[in-house]
This record gives sequence, structure tokens and C-alpha cells, in this order.
Amino acid sequence: MSNIINVIKVGGAVVEDPQLCHSLLKSFASMPGERILVHGGGRTATAMAAKLGIETKMAEGRRITDEAMLEVVTMVYGGLVNKRVVSLLQSLDVNAIGLTGADLECIRAHKRPVKTIDYGFVGDVDGINPLAFKTLLGLGAVPVVAPLSFDKDNGLLNTNADTIATEVAKGMAKSDSMTKVILTFCFEKKGVLADPDDEDSVISVIDREIYASLKADGIVSGGMIPKLDNAFAALDAGVAEVMITNAAELGKGTGTVIRL
Amino acid sequence: MSNIINVIKVGGAVVEDPQLCHSLLKSFASMPGERILVHGGGRTATAMAAKLGIETKMAEGRRITDEAMLEVVTMVYGGLVNKRVVSLLQSLDVNAIGLTGADLECIRAHKRPVKTIDYGFVGDVDGINPLAFKTLLGLGAVPVVAPLSFDKDNGLLNTNADTIATEVAKGMAKSDSMTKVILTFCFEKKGVLADPDDEDSVISVIDREIYASLKADGIVSGGMIPKLDNAFAALDAGVAEVMITNAAELGKGTGTVIRL
Repeated sequence: MSNIINVIKVGGAVVEDPQLCHSLLKSFASMPGERILVHGGGRTATAMAAKLGIETKMAEGRRITDEAMLEVVTMVYGGLVNKRVVSLLQSLDVNAIGLTGADLECIRAHKRPVKTIDYGFVGDVDGINPLAFKTLLGLGAVPVVAPLSFDKDNGLLNTNADTIATEVAKGMAKSDSMTKVILTFCFEKKGVLADPDDEDSVISVIDREIYASLKADGIVSGGMIPKLDNAFAALDAGVAEVMITNAAELGKGTGTVIRL
Repeated sequence: MSNIINVIKVGGAVVEDPQLCHSLLKSFASMPGERILVHGGGRTATAMAAKLGIETKMAEGRRITDEAMLEVVTMVYGGLVNKRVVSLLQSLDVNAIGLTGADLECIRAHKRPVKTIDYGFVGDVDGINPLAFKTLLGLGAVPVVAPLSFDKDNGLLNTNADTIATEVAKGMAKSDSMTKVILTFCFEKKGVLADPDDEDSVISVIDREIYASLKADGIVSGGMIPKLDNAFAALDAGVAEVMITNAAELGKGTGTVIRL
């Protein structure tokens, strides 16, 4: 077994753009070593829900998942998007296998308790099944993970894809201290930008001190905050490296490196 | 590794009825030995297509699968139905893993050539990847297979679930002559009936001679013909036993036995 595992998170905007998705998967296919791909698909879910007359409700940037929406995300994340990615990877000679948290019970979660907001069928991850991932990787297979976790009492639950990727990376790092786990978030921008309107203003390195000042200055805000919080949580849990990079530049070493 | 593999096909009408599905999966969960479950989902696909304003067109009892319908069956078979079954099995402590033909490239097919009818994105199976199934079974996992095959040039293709089950059973039997493969078709009736209106008129045994006379007398007709043709094809290819039985009676030895 190689001693590097790359966990790559690909955002919805990337997998939903056929050209960008194909180019990303080609880069992914040519990466050496063991790889796990985690994908989103929120826009497709929202569009499919709309077609079915189901309203998408968000709270603090997260999808509220009632029974009808759970059906939509199960279909879209676990079926449409996951199988499209698996199928494209197989066409590129990558021996992909699609997974949700229920498959091999690989991502265990519990239904989020109701505090001020009832998110419905949303899962907070308790942990992964590292043996399931290791076994598949050992067979030369490439797990492709949909953002659905699993709770024995409640079944499938909707979980943010960044969180799934972070938990998979943390779980793999924790299970084997000899393995170097690298977590990469791929999205449509070149990295974390100092000026959101200037694609060439990529911040190369962010540590906790820089992060605090970026937040204080309002340079980092919105959806980037949970992404960076996830990145630091992963590093704290033993993940060797976290990158935030452009989907078209996967594996080229560009983008933002997050470090402790 | 045990030397019996049970391949169980469950029809759409069974998996789509929550109570029947749960009762079937409980029987399935208590079966000993290595098991592969293949499911349908045609009615859910038709209902979902209708909700999305997509018309379902059939020719000779088979679904014509244009691009829009391929999206529907990918979502419904690969996502909604497959993940619901996997999730229910995991709740019953069965270590299920959902597969389409693209996952581990486990069911290879080619797009059906156009003769008098253009079925669209429909796959005729070329063969299975027995090693993929054997490896998963060897790990104690239970493959749950959606009726989608895979063609490297065309991606996912729609394939009848009875055919998928038959091909999986044939492929497993061919790959290892020491393994006894038992193929069971579970549906809503008690078996092949001599009188379609009398549930107690189950024909216990059908061989080729009996089959010919049942067809000649019009007792066996419609959708039962391809099912029985599949059964004989499986026996010819080395499958040890084929059963057609009621979903509520799986594992009880009731129903119709098909033999050479």
C-alpha cells in the first residue's frame, strides 16, 4: 500500500459543468497513488427539487432536508451525480466505485438535534469506517463518495460535502499514522483570494494567525469560513496537508495551502 | 469462502411497497451464506418521469430510454431505490454495498443496436466482472445491484433487472465450477400459476418439456416468458438452481423450481 492518500473534494459547480468536470476527472485520473473523491451536487438537487415542485429552504447556508428533499438528494447525490462521476472515471480507466455513507456503513452519523433550527434529515458525522476505505483502496479501487451519511436509526442523512471530505481525511489519518493524508478542496476559483474580483490575488499560505487577520479584515467571509474551519480541523486531527485550489489545476501545486 | 451463492432478484412491485420490501429484506437478512441482491424499480421510474413531465414509452414490454429517461433511471435505480435498499439492509446488520454496472465495472454491456426498434440507451450485457463480486463477498459484503449496465463508450445503460440477475448468476457460476449458484426471482405471486386467478395453483416444477406445453396452452404468457427464458439460459450456463417465488416466502422453499 502506498503511504499517501489524496482525498479530493469537488464542488457542485465543478461536477455540474460537463467540460470542467471532464477536465477535472482527467487530472484526477492521472494522479498517482491512492485517491478518494468526494463530490457535491447542491445546484442539481435544487434544480431537480424545483422541477418536482419542491421548495428548497436554506438556513445559514445549509439545506433544510425534509422527507421530500431527502428523496431528492438521495436520487441526485447518490444516483445522478455519483453514477455520472463513476461512469466518467471508468471511461478514463479509473476503477471507481460509488459510495454513500450507508454503503459498507462507511460514514456513520446521527440526525442533527434540533436547537434553534430544525434541519430535518441532516447528519452530523460521528466517524468513518476506515477499514472499508482501506480495503477498497487496497484492491486498486477509487471510492467516489456522495454527500450522504448514514444513521442506523434514521437511514440516509444529508451532510455537507466539505464536511464529508474532511471527516474522510481525518478518519484515514487517524486510523494509520504511517499514512500521509492530503486533503484538497477543488472549486471554481484559483484559491483563497485577497481580492474576490482578482483571480490573481491568490493567498499562497494561510496559518491560524493569517486566518484570524483575514477574518478580521473581512477578506475571508461567507462559505469560505466553514471551508477553512474544516481545513484547520483536519490538520488538528493529523491530516498532513490541506489545499484549496482550482478544479482545472488539480495536482499542479497551485492554490492556497492551509497549515497549522 | 462458502460454496453457495444466492442471487436474489426482487421486482419493482416488491421494493416499492414499504411493508413487502421490509419483510423481504428481513428474510434476505436471515439467509445464510453469500448473497447478491438485484432489484428493479420500473414503477418508481415511470412515476418520477411523469412528475418531471417525461413520457414513458415502452416497446414489447421494455422501456425506451432516451437521454431524459436515462437520467431518470440513473437517479431512481442507482440512487433512490438502490440506496433505500442498502440503507434498510444496513439497519438489519447486513453489510450491503450498492452497485451499478459502472461501479468496479461489474456489469459490462454494449448499447443495443437499432433493428426495428430504437431502444436508446439500453444495454445488452456482455458479461460481468466476477472478481469484483467475489472480492466483495469475500469481505463479507452483500452487493445490491441496480439494473444499470455500463459501456465504456456510452456510459451507463438501462438493462432489465431479470437480465441483470441472470447474467450475474451465470457469470458467478461460470467463473467457479466449485460454487453452487442459486438464482431466485422474487415477485408478488406465489410462483408460476396454472390459473392466474388462483394463488394456490402454483406449478411446482417446470422443465423444458412442461414449459413448451405451458406455452402452447397459453398458461404461460406475457412477462413470464422472458423470465422463464432467462431461467433456462441460466441453467444452461451452469447455474445450479432457479426458483420463482413469492417475495414474502423467500428462503422457505415454496414457489416454482425451474430445471433442465
